[in-house]
Parts: sequence; structure tokens; C-alpha cells
Amino acid sequence: MRLIPRESKFFRMFADVSQNLTQGARLLHDILKNPANMEPRLDQLQEIEHRGDEMTHGIITALNQTFITPFDREDIHRLTSSLDDVLDFVNAAGVRLRLYKIKTPPSIAAELAAMIVEQSEELAQGVSLLEKNKLVLEHCVEVHRLENEADRLSRNAIADLFDNEKDPIHLIKIKELYEVLETATDKAEDAANVLETVALKSN
Amino acid sequence: MRLIPRESKFFRMFADVSQNLTQGARLLHDILKNPANMEPRLDQLQEIEHRGDEMTHGIITALNQTFITPFDREDIHRLTSSLDDVLDFVNAAGVRLRLYKIKTPPSIAAELAAMIVEQSEELAQGVSLLEKNKLVLEHCVEVHRLENEADRLSRNAIADLFDNEKDPIHLIKIKELYEVLETATDKAEDAANVLETVALKSN
Amino acid sequence: MRLIPRESKFFRMFADVSQNLTQGARLLHDILKNPANMEPRLDQLQEIEHRGDEMTHGIITALNQTFITPFDREDIHRLTSSLDDVLDFVNAAGVRLRLYKIKTPPSIAAELAAMIVEQSEELAQGVSLLEKNKLVLEHCVEVHRLENEADRLSRNAIADLFDNEKDPIHLIKIKELYEVLETATDKAEDAANVLETVALKSN
Repeated sequence: MRLIPRESKFFRMFADVSQNLTQGARLLHDILKNPANMEPRLDQLQEIEHRGDEMTHGIITALNQTFITPFDREDIHRLTSSLDDVLDFVNAAGVRLRLYKIKTPPSIAAELAAMIVEQSEELAQGVSLLEKNKLVLEHCVEVHRLENEADRLSRNAIADLFDNEKDPIHLIKIKELYEVLETATDKAEDAANVLETVALKSN
Repeated sequence: MRLIPRESKFFRMFADVSQNLTQGARLLHDILKNPANMEPRLDQLQEIEHRGDEMTHGIITALNQTFITPFDREDIHRLTSSLDDVLDFVNAAGVRLRLYKIKTPPSIAAELAAMIVEQSEELAQGVSLLEKNKLVLEHCVEVHRLENEADRLSRNAIADLFDNEKDPIHLIKIKELYEVLETATDKAEDAANVLETVALKSN
Repeated sequence: MRLIPRESKFFRMFADVSQNLTQGARLLHDILKNPANMEPRLDQLQEIEHRGDEMTHGIITALNQTFITPFDREDIHRLTSSLDDVLDFVNAAGVRLRLYKIKTPPSIAAELAAMIVEQSEELAQGVSLLEKNKLVLEHCVEVHRLENEADRLSRNAIADLFDNEKDPIHLIKIKELYEVLETATDKAEDAANVLETVALKSN
């Protein structure tokens, strides 16, 4: 009887991780939309990413100390890593702004960040439903749809960039910003894939 | 007695995936060799990639619903992902042609695509021999050899590019095309590594 | 009683792999610090990388032929791959020097390589302590600290590059050199993560 409550700590830990991710994604979106005075908010984003690392580490440690897990150890490992990867790339986009001194990011960057926010919210909902294993798949489908949309958007933005930007150094900066944002949406899709696998297995 | 036939569906599914991959690689090679009027063929390549995604999804779903699998679940997962990755990068090369408006791709690009075609054919043969577990390794060795050759070829091509291309924006485009093609051959090598592991385990 | 000695061959194999890695990292550091007449040493680095590939292959083959392993098969697989990845990126940095004809690499590149040397030494010590499972974690902590430091260093170097380098083609070359070096330190961190997992599990 003591085992069930102990197991459910993993669900709580995943809920914390995905809430932290959502917070980071919202902050990035806010920075890209209103880039004035971005420095303190970039520091805050770095702290959120750091907190995410610690949470991830906590899950892996708990995993190694737990005999009975609520679902496959390997899947817990994968889900943890992929959620952490999303936040890493969210922060990496912030890092690019600082590194490359991008003071006025293009509006498409904010649009891509908005999609990462939506994906994070869907993942958080999927994760919260995992314990009861109800309706998880709907949220995964939505994460996939958003990744496809982000893919199309970033491709068009990069094609535009090559058509219009004549300064190669500025082109390198903005291209990389788009790519980092797009990779964040890919990592969210990876997380959705694991979620899907877990939900299907326990049916 | 009903279990064996059910298991063998995985071999059939892998055969389908690797035939679809070979078709995609051949189409890419054809486009790079005869780039005139490439648009409809790039659409077709995108469709092949999409079909590959669906096949991959089908294998993962089947995996989650099957108790007895013909080889390690983890290896089925890895083989599926790596074959899908090859096709993703084959399509990504096509996407670059469109995105960067590369009308006359360099001849080395077609040579690299020819190596991906060969690798795909070797993988398809290796996969088809997996059920009987005969001569799988020979095909894996060939995939490795082709990866090494592609690596050398793309390195030389990139060195030449840096020596001769004075337009940095054009350099960025062609460098990325080479890198995407080379990554496809790396992913084929990953698939060969899994194939090898599976073949050795069942000896 | 015969089983234990057979198992311990994995520890010996990991010791060999991490010594080979350390040798490669030291050679890269030496090349970056004293770049005159680098060609023969770049060839030697390529050979070390090739030897690493063979050692990796040997571990995977042994793994597939061994029923009882000293720790989780999946972890042996991960540790092997991540150590091999570090050496791949160490060699990739050397390849960039040749490919891009970088005759006088920036001093920060040598500093980054020095961190990879330190990480490799820490990994080698962690690996050597794994069999007795004592003090492994201290070495992992050190690998993480070095990765953080390398991350900060390479970010500042890239920011400087974008501030001061006006030639976009030269910027592309040096940026990639920094990124490849930084990725090597990331892969070392991945290896430390696996080491940590293995040490915690066997407590």
C-alpha cells in the first residue's frame, strides 16, 4: 500500500517539470514580443533553465532509487530528457539574443515562440492526464500539429531571409535564431512521442 | 502457432520502410542529377517522407501492442527511428533546394545522393535477410564503407567551397546542402549498426 | 566463479577507451597550442579516432555475446557511445583546422581543448573507480563544472567574434571550430551522466 503513493511522485515531478517549461516558454515569448530592456528577463530565463536541470536530475536520481515505477524506466528517462531538451532550446534562443546582440528580433520569432508556449501547455495537460491515462493522445496530436505549423513558418521565414537579407553576418544570426526555435518545437514533438508510447502501452 | 505469423509482420513492415526509403533516395538523386523543373518532384519527395512517418508510427504502435517481438523491443525502436532519420535528411536536402532556390546544384551533391541510394539498397537487403539471419553483416559493412567514402567526398567538397566561393551567402547554402547529405549517410550507418547488433544477438 | 573475471573485461575495455580519448584530447590541445607543422599530428589524431571506433565496436560485440554484464546493458551501450562521441568531436575539431586551412587558431580554442583534456582525465578516473564504485561521483561533478566553464568561455568567444570579425567566411570557420569544441564538452557531460547513473544504481 505504501508503494502507490511513492510511485505517484513521478507524476508530480513531471507536472513540475512541464510547468517550469511552460513558464520558460512564456517568458521567451514575452521577451521576443517586447524586446525592450530584455537583459533581466534573459537572466530569469537562464534561472528557469537551471531549475529545469535540477528537476531533471531529481527525476533521474529518484528513478535510480525506486524499484517499482509507474511506467517503463526507459520511457521515464526519455520523457525527462526530451522535456529538458525543449527548455534547453527555449533558453538557447534567449542566449542567441544576448550573444548576437539582436535588439529587435523579427516578428516571426515571437510567432514561433507562441507555438512553443502552446506545445508546452499541451504537454503539461498530457502529462497531468497520464496518471489516469485519459485523453492523453489528443494533446499529443496537437503537439504534432503545432510542430508541423512551426516547421512551415520557419522554412518560409528562412527563405525570405535569404531573399532579402544582404548582410551575411546578420543573416547567420537570424537564421540560427529561427533554427533554435524550430528545434525546440521538434523536441516538444519527441516528448509527445514518448507520452503517446506510454499511454498506448498502459491501455 | 499463431504467434510466429504475427511476429513476422515486423519484418514486413521493415521491408516496406526500407523500400520507401530507397524510393526517396532515388528520387533525390534524380532531382540533383537533372534539376530542371524540380518542383513537382520535390512535392513527391515530401509525400514519400510523409508516408515514411506514417509507416514509422505504425511500427511503434504495433510494437506497443505486441507481447512477443522477433527481436529486442529497444532494437526495433532504434532501427525504426534510424531508418526514418535517413529519409528525413533525404527530404531535408530536397527542402534546401527549394528554400535556398538552388537551381543548379553542384555535381558532388548528386554523387553524395548516389551513395545514399546505395546505402538504402544495402539496408533493404540487410533487412530482408534479417528474418533468416543470413549474410546481414556483409550489407552492414558495405553501408559503413559508403559512409566513409561520403565523408571524404563531402569534406573535400567543403574545402573546395571555402577555397573558391567568394559569396558568403551562396557558400552558406551549398555548405548546408553537403552537410545534410552527409548526415543522411551517417543516419544510414546508425541503422546498419542496429542491424548488426540484432544479427549478432540472434546468432 | 569464472563469471566475475569475464565481466571485469568491460571495466578494462572502458579503461582503454578513456585512455585513448585522453590521448586524443591531449594531442588536439597540443596542436591548437603549437599549430606549426600540424599535418602529421592531424593524421595521428585521425588514427586515434579510428582506434576509438574499433574499441567501441569491440565493446558492443562483447556486449552482444555476454549474458551477465557488470551493469545494465543499456548503460554500457550509452557509456560506450558517449565516450566515442567525445573523441569524434575532438577529431572533428582537428578536421576543421585542415578543411578550413586555419593556420593560427585563436587562443580560446586551445583553452577549450584544455578543458576537454581535463574532462577526459576525470572520466578516465571515474571509469577506473567504477568497479569498486567508490568516489565516482566526485569526478562526474568535475566534468559538469568543466562543461559549464567551457560553455561560458565559448559563448563569450562567439560574441567577440561577431563583434570584431568583419569577414563572414572567416567568421563561419572560427564559429564552427568553437562549436565543435563546445560540443565535445557536452558529450563528455553525457558520459558523466551515464557514469553517475551507473554508480547510483549499484549503491
